[in-house]
Amino acid sequence: MKIAMLGFGNIGAGFYNEIKSGYKDIEIVKALVRDIKKTRAIEADKLTLDYNDILNNPEITAVVDVTAGEASVKLIIDALNASKSVITANKMAVALAGAEFIDIAREKGVNFYFEAAVGGGIPVINLFNENVRPHRIDKVIGILNGTTNYILTKMSDGGLEFDQALKLAQDKGFAEPDPSFDLTGRDSAYKITILKDLLFDYKCGAEDIFCQGIDRISKTDLDYAASINYRIKLVGYIQNFSSGIDIGVRPVFLPAAHPLAQVNNEYNAVYIEGAPIGEIMLYGRGAGAGPTAASLIGDLLRIKRDGSRGFNVAYARGVVKKSSMPPEMKTQSNYFRFNVLDVPGVISKITTIFEKYNISISSMKQDISNANEPAAVIFTTHESKSSKIPSMIEEIKRNKFIINEPVWYKIGI
Amino acid sequence: MKIAMLGFGNIGAGFYNEIKSGYKDIEIVKALVRDIKKTRAIEADKLTLDYNDILNNPEITAVVDVTAGEASVKLIIDALNASKSVITANKMAVALAGAEFIDIAREKGVNFYFEAAVGGGIPVINLFNENVRPHRIDKVIGILNGTTNYILTKMSDGGLEFDQALKLAQDKGFAEPDPSFDLTGRDSAYKITILKDLLFDYKCGAEDIFCQGIDRISKTDLDYAASINYRIKLVGYIQNFSSGIDIGVRPVFLPAAHPLAQVNNEYNAVYIEGAPIGEIMLYGRGAGAGPTAASLIGDLLRIKRDGSRGFNVAYARGVVKKSSMPPEMKTQSNYFRFNVLDVPGVISKITTIFEKYNISISSMKQDISNANEPAAVIFTTHESKSSKIPSMIEEIKRNKFIINEPVWYKIGI
Repeated sequence: MKIAMLGFGNIGAGFYNEIKSGYKDIEIVKALVRDIKKTRAIEADKLTLDYNDILNNPEITAVVDVTAGEASVKLIIDALNASKSVITANKMAVALAGAEFIDIAREKGVNFYFEAAVGGGIPVINLFNENVRPHRIDKVIGILNGTTNYILTKMSDGGLEFDQALKLAQDKGFAEPDPSFDLTGRDSAYKITILKDLLFDYKCGAEDIFCQGIDRISKTDLDYAASINYRIKLVGYIQNFSSGIDIGVRPVFLPAAHPLAQVNNEYNAVYIEGAPIGEIMLYGRGAGAGPTAASLIGDLLRIKRDGSRGFNVAYARGVVKKSSMPPEMKTQSNYFRFNVLDVPGVISKITTIFEKYNISISSMKQDISNANEPAAVIFTTHESKSSKIPSMIEEIKRNKFIINEPVWYKIGI
Repeated sequence: MKIAMLGFGNIGAGFYNEIKSGYKDIEIVKALVRDIKKTRAIEADKLTLDYNDILNNPEITAVVDVTAGEASVKLIIDALNASKSVITANKMAVALAGAEFIDIAREKGVNFYFEAAVGGGIPVINLFNENVRPHRIDKVIGILNGTTNYILTKMSDGGLEFDQALKLAQDKGFAEPDPSFDLTGRDSAYKITILKDLLFDYKCGAEDIFCQGIDRISKTDLDYAASINYRIKLVGYIQNFSSGIDIGVRPVFLPAAHPLAQVNNEYNAVYIEGAPIGEIMLYGRGAGAGPTAASLIGDLLRIKRDGSRGFNVAYARGVVKKSSMPPEMKTQSNYFRFNVLDVPGVISKITTIFEKYNISISSMKQDISNANEPAAVIFTTHESKSSKIPSMIEEIKRNKFIINEPVWYKIGI
């Protein structure tokens, strides 16, 4: 079997080495790169700047895409149209144009696989296609981003402040020099959108869903969560209600005994509740060259095995037709942190605004334990309508005693 | 699609109801039972005592086996020979004759699936076939029995003694009236043997592997483990060393931070370490009518989808040829509990015997905290050769101060 690669970075080199050392009957004959002069762990004569070297080579039956970003959408379409099976690790491409890729692959009788696009080495895509999709699924909650989970773990267990934890993640190679795609939750948004497409016929783009990151989280928040026996995790979630789908990315307070609450450091996990299957969780390494190569190789071996039987029909879109859950039906318990100039006078002002918006307070605490942060006033609330919360926060922010942007997280999921 | 059932107990009724309520295009036309007079949640005219009613009905394309015990081996062989696909939840049948079933299914161009035989609702078989088998696997550790995991959880977290926890498990329906198949580890032995067959070409029967149960465990043991930040779990394990395979079932001390240490109550989980895939864990409901039905239905839908394409080649035996790890190469750290008549005088006698067998003691503790148990002397050891341990225990037991059978568990895995 002769294959080609799109891109040849860290992930690409890991994949190349695995294939070269362990799979004598698979040969990587070309790799499309942008800079042909750069020294890479592949023979220089295999590198090319011209995609036609791959598209027009009839010996190449599959293309393995290890690039990042939207540009690979066109590359994947071109490869599928040239009747080559495609395997991609590119979550953005799959979230943006997965349906189109599947349609073209079907039409051309080739395969399109993307196990590495969500959860790195964790075979979550195959789990969803083969074992989850046939059942009624109520809930999917995923820790889908290793960078943010590592930071949250080091803040809650290691006693670090956000900046220290981020620096440590960068030093260890778990965070990019520019970490904003991870910290703002957008990375998770692309991944949860892909999982949604596997289960439901419900259109929404990764950039359109509710998305709250951990870029403003503080040790105060994690310590408070621990004090009430919760852990804060950044999750992508899909909740399937009779009134519609609620999908998004947000930090949530999870009870310490929840299986996801135990998923620490750079690990990822996806937790599913359904009937009659019950609860399932799949845990593992969500990133890194080795685990990602494992998923790419798993896809490749499936193509090698099933090739002549054409497109694996399991890899389809969800067929359960759903609409969006009406925003006014969403309710949740909440955690709020307001950093204020002068604590004593402000409590009644804040609580009056809570009352006005019908958000029922369950507890209040003044926290001055974090020397790195101005005095914090923490509120938790009973289950309340969530649609009014942004307006309420805006009204509270108009008071001059509010120092920085309030923090607001959901309790439970 | 018309199918038949073998057996119609609790699991069978769950499966029947799911199919009837959710799958209009699948019809269960016959169920083979031993007692045709018993009232069951299926129309009486579908029940039969005569297997030929199923075997000779050409409309029936698949047979779903929800019986327990060895008798189903012959029933499965007969169905496959009659060119009917077979799905079974029977771990004993798969462990005993899985290879034969696969061979006949191949020959007849039908399918043989057994997702429900290991891990109930957790799709561990599919995970192994599609995502684990292609990689180099170093270690498989599974909490494969919900009964014993429930008992251990209630003893360590709920403060119950063994008898109380067993009683509670029976009251909740998590343990059989005769629980010995679970407590002695034999149930787990069948399941780990099936997983071994999916990964390695290494022959050994479930009844031949090392098997240590929890039938002699005490709250003293669980409390001691907690005091050194470990949890005791009954696991099935496969360790793939260059010197050979080490497979068995035993209670082990797992560090509290190990992903399996967090798997509580009646839940099951399988943890895998390999390269380049890293660590993976799959968690969920290991028993119960709903989760088991989910696995049976998953298999059935795959047959419905792939039927005309014949046997799914993924469901094959492991091809990595391995031999048994030589017993003299096995080393481990250990936990020993000796219940003794008169503590002070016996320590030197026991430690002298440890020294004679070259088992190096790392800690000793006299425990008289458990009022339900005679004074206990607890030893932990450094990593030592394990082959000598049974003889050492025999020699210690010859002393009259030893009251009951010593307890010996492995620390770490």
